[in-house]
Amino acid sequence: MEGTTEKDCSPLWSLYQQIVSDMKNSAPMWEEFISKATKLHSALKSALVAIAAFLDAFQKIADAATNARGATKEIGTALTRVCLRHRAIETRMKTFISALMDTLITPLSERADDWRRGGCATGALSREHARECKRARAELRRRVQEAQRHARKARRAQPDAKRRADVCMQDVQERKQQLEEMEEKAVKAALIEERSRFCHFVSLLNPVVESEVAMLAEVGHLQEGSEQLVRHTAEPRTLPAASLQVQNLNHYR
Amino acid sequence: MEGTTEKDCSPLWSLYQQIVSDMKNSAPMWEEFISKATKLHSALKSALVAIAAFLDAFQKIADAATNARGATKEIGTALTRVCLRHRAIETRMKTFISALMDTLITPLSERADDWRRGGCATGALSREHARECKRARAELRRRVQEAQRHARKARRAQPDAKRRADVCMQDVQERKQQLEEMEEKAVKAALIEERSRFCHFVSLLNPVVESEVAMLAEVGHLQEGSEQLVRHTAEPRTLPAASLQVQNLNHYR
Repeated sequence: MEGTTEKDCSPLWSLYQQIVSDMKNSAPMWEEFISKATKLHSALKSALVAIAAFLDAFQKIADAATNARGATKEIGTALTRVCLRHRAIETRMKTFISALMDTLITPLSERADDWRRGGCATGALSREHARECKRARAELRRRVQEAQRHARKARRAQPDAKRRADVCMQDVQERKQQLEEMEEKAVKAALIEERSRFCHFVSLLNPVVESEVAMLAEVGHLQEGSEQLVRHTAEPRTLPAASLQVQNLNHYR
Repeated sequence: MEGTTEKDCSPLWSLYQQIVSDMKNSAPMWEEFISKATKLHSALKSALVAIAAFLDAFQKIADAATNARGATKEIGTALTRVCLRHRAIETRMKTFISALMDTLITPLSERADDWRRGGCATGALSREHARECKRARAELRRRVQEAQRHARKARRAQPDAKRRADVCMQDVQERKQQLEEMEEKAVKAALIEERSRFCHFVSLLNPVVESEVAMLAEVGHLQEGSEQLVRHTAEPRTLPAASLQVQNLNHYR
């Protein structure tokens, strides 16, 4: 029992200090995430430029099929549809890439700076709690010594010593209880701070994941466009009925 | 009537030549598509590297939450799930990027070279048909002149001339019919060749779109993971019941 009050670290107190030190040491983890996310952002932006150029070239093929001499009009229309679906995906992707920077990278960088500097709750909590607990621990130590002195006197059967020893013991027990509560409060505060950080991270991450999921909404349409293409190109060597009759050959006959 | 047989180009024949020339002139269109697709392929490959590094950093945060002092374990688990879903998307993306090169860019480049060199059906078709039709047209021209000569004689009431003029006229009609059929066959062959090219393009494109659809479909699983995250982080400042009681505080009490 004495050990837990007289030593500078009770298990609860060392738990508290470990949480605080874990948070301090997590700075490189957040920094690495921000750095990788920034690189991802710029890679996706480059990909977006390549996608736009690709879709332009794709649309030219669709237009060529649409404007050809009658036998590929419906293929051209289906290609245009697939191209438009890709433009819709491109638009969703733009939103996603913006969200990555605006709702995740930028605000997380700012917050991670706070976390690193300890200018946030943790730093303040840590110093304040440490001071408070140190004071309480010193006082408790003094009271324990006093109680022990009275206990020795009581053993030598001095008058009043037994009663005074009991009063001191009572006081020591109360102070022990208080210190425990104080340390528990500190651990709770540290756990909440730690948990809040991850929750904050998730709250920044979620809009990004949502805009990523929104890209999914386009997939059904793409599938549909793709199936139409397959249908229209099932018979490459069979000309559509209309292609020879109406426009071309009547012109000559 | 004479115009269509005596001039070197009937409307049907000029249609044929326009289709063939359209195909010849489409070389830059295919080349541009291949070039843009190649650039897209390399941009996506770079993005894939950035995604892998991003997910590593993401997993570290998930691990930190899982291994923290008890209050963020379930957030860590949900983050790990979201990370794993992204790994699945990454895998699908790899398949998609490979498909882009292996089933679209590479085979289309080879085919486009054929198309450009005219070493394929078009070139052969074009020369063969042109020769055949030219011969038929010259012969028809000769026969028309003969028919006209007989017609003039018939008008001057020469004996037998009327009958011979009719025979010649009959012959000219048959040859006209044959030339028409020949030209129609050429137009059909050219239309089929043109159509086959677009169909071939679609057949190369489709596996890519399919693997794209599969990639986007994978995003659906993300939604679930994301919802779980939202649930677990709804109350950042409320510690999970177990976090203080079991592991940490019992240790002390």
